[in-house]
Amino acid sequence: MALEEKNVVVLVGGVGGAKLAHGLAQILPPGKLTIIVNTADDFWHYGLRICPDLDTVMYTLGGLVNKANGWGIEGDSFDMLAALKRYGESGWFALGDQDMATHLLRTQALLKGDTLTAVTQKLTTALGIGHTILPMTDAQVATKLVTVEQGELDFQVYFVREHWQPTIRSVRFDGIEGAAVSLEAQRALASADVILFGPSNPWLSIAPILAVPGMRERLLARELPRVALSPIIGSEAVKGPAAKLIAELNYDVSAKAVADYYQGVINGFVYDVLDAGLHIDGVRTTTFDTIMRTDEDRVVLAGRMLEWALETE
Amino acid sequence: MALEEKNVVVLVGGVGGAKLAHGLAQILPPGKLTIIVNTADDFWHYGLRICPDLDTVMYTLGGLVNKANGWGIEGDSFDMLAALKRYGESGWFALGDQDMATHLLRTQALLKGDTLTAVTQKLTTALGIGHTILPMTDAQVATKLVTVEQGELDFQVYFVREHWQPTIRSVRFDGIEGAAVSLEAQRALASADVILFGPSNPWLSIAPILAVPGMRERLLARELPRVALSPIIGSEAVKGPAAKLIAELNYDVSAKAVADYYQGVINGFVYDVLDAGLHIDGVRTTTFDTIMRTDEDRVVLAGRMLEWALETE
Repeated sequence: MALEEKNVVVLVGGVGGAKLAHGLAQILPPGKLTIIVNTADDFWHYGLRICPDLDTVMYTLGGLVNKANGWGIEGDSFDMLAALKRYGESGWFALGDQDMATHLLRTQALLKGDTLTAVTQKLTTALGIGHTILPMTDAQVATKLVTVEQGELDFQVYFVREHWQPTIRSVRFDGIEGAAVSLEAQRALASADVILFGPSNPWLSIAPILAVPGMRERLLARELPRVALSPIIGSEAVKGPAAKLIAELNYDVSAKAVADYYQGVINGFVYDVLDAGLHIDGVRTTTFDTIMRTDEDRVVLAGRMLEWALETE
Repeated sequence: MALEEKNVVVLVGGVGGAKLAHGLAQILPPGKLTIIVNTADDFWHYGLRICPDLDTVMYTLGGLVNKANGWGIEGDSFDMLAALKRYGESGWFALGDQDMATHLLRTQALLKGDTLTAVTQKLTTALGIGHTILPMTDAQVATKLVTVEQGELDFQVYFVREHWQPTIRSVRFDGIEGAAVSLEAQRALASADVILFGPSNPWLSIAPILAVPGMRERLLARELPRVALSPIIGSEAVKGPAAKLIAELNYDVSAKAVADYYQGVINGFVYDVLDAGLHIDGVRTTTFDTIMRTDEDRVVLAGRMLEWALETE
């Protein structure tokens, strides 16, 4: 069975995960890739339901993403935001004008009773994306960070408004116990030939996906390659607050700590050549150049990771 | 008592009325002018509460209005609208990006339980407007047009999407029986020294204001000048569908028909010099150059109208 005939599921958060998903999307034919996306960063803002990770993945696969940021829409304007400030609003969360169309259509559909899965399908199809992007659940889950300086903060407040400066004491996913794996995600996992874990923050972006009741069991239900890609190189995160947060939660900032976190879930681990020499009990490992600077890098890394994952068969 | 010490109330719809209100705003000191605005054209669109006439008045008095259109914000972008179209939406209603800030803040406040009066006060204050802009009511009223070709249409669908081309058979104001004059409007009317009727479409823009239960009684409660400005010159409307609509409703398209419509409500009528020679029973009349091409024209016309109205005292 050729690589192109495999059913691939990849679990991701935002920017880094979106890059790997984009690489996979360019290798796999339509219908063969399902991307399960963290939605615990989602929040309500000005009455709009905003799903940062879903949007990042969608804009990346749709060819719309702002390449310098890795999120948002290339060339987007911020005229509404400026007008909000004219009304005295702080405008701490960058709502792009083109981006607003996504928030508006999504919110309206959700308020009409559509599931987030259905809305996302509709939006991605309209953008010509042939692969399936699924929220981790249709329930509303909210990452809450207990900080030393400011008590409990909503994720976006911590991450965007406070520029991830407060010190994290603990993380919880509000509403997770009432969440469920959607039928669409159940189907994708039941027919998966390989499951990948994107280079997203395990504690912030992958943890909520794993915490959806029933998700872990479905990931582990069958014998198949389950391979994670480390977002940590040396003692640094490729992007974002991962390194700072990991240290604050009293873990080592290392690829090893990432692999340890995934113990019991993965059977394969890919990390950067710079960290070569890692041994993890019961888990196959390999090293690649894991930094995705260019679009070509994504395709190469996704291909290598997929081929390596499938070597186990 | 000088003109500047008078309490002035003006009833208006959108563009034409906003121009007269703007003229008055430049003559009268803060706190002396109350503008009661038609809200029967308001509608829900993409989950947002949009109040076209309130916004036109607010943007005009706030110095933000697009001068070529008479509505919307000068220099506004339409990037969200373009993005909506990318998702397959028709985008028939022009939602400007800056304009969106107004819709978003208003909708959020209304959904939280604030009155439209309170929201409008907050927004106008933030824009530095020292005069009071009041919705005709805090209830939701919706102008419905029964058309020959397409049955009943919502006002904005008729006006914007269908470019006021369908033939009108009748007009009704859905929800008007449950509407009430707000306390703020009651207070303004109770302390008014003069009440003006802007050059707005009487059948579409002023009619719903007059139809708010209790409004007519409050307008007529005391002896004071109540002076209307005709939006019809010759047999043409200065702007918009007034002439077409008046003809379809089987009225004459003339300043006379406007004055007849206001019979029993006004005691003074101002119309254009081009129509000189009008006689209306029981109503004082005068003619001015009523076309407001420039900002200066607005100030001149507002001043003349106000002085003439107060001559009755």
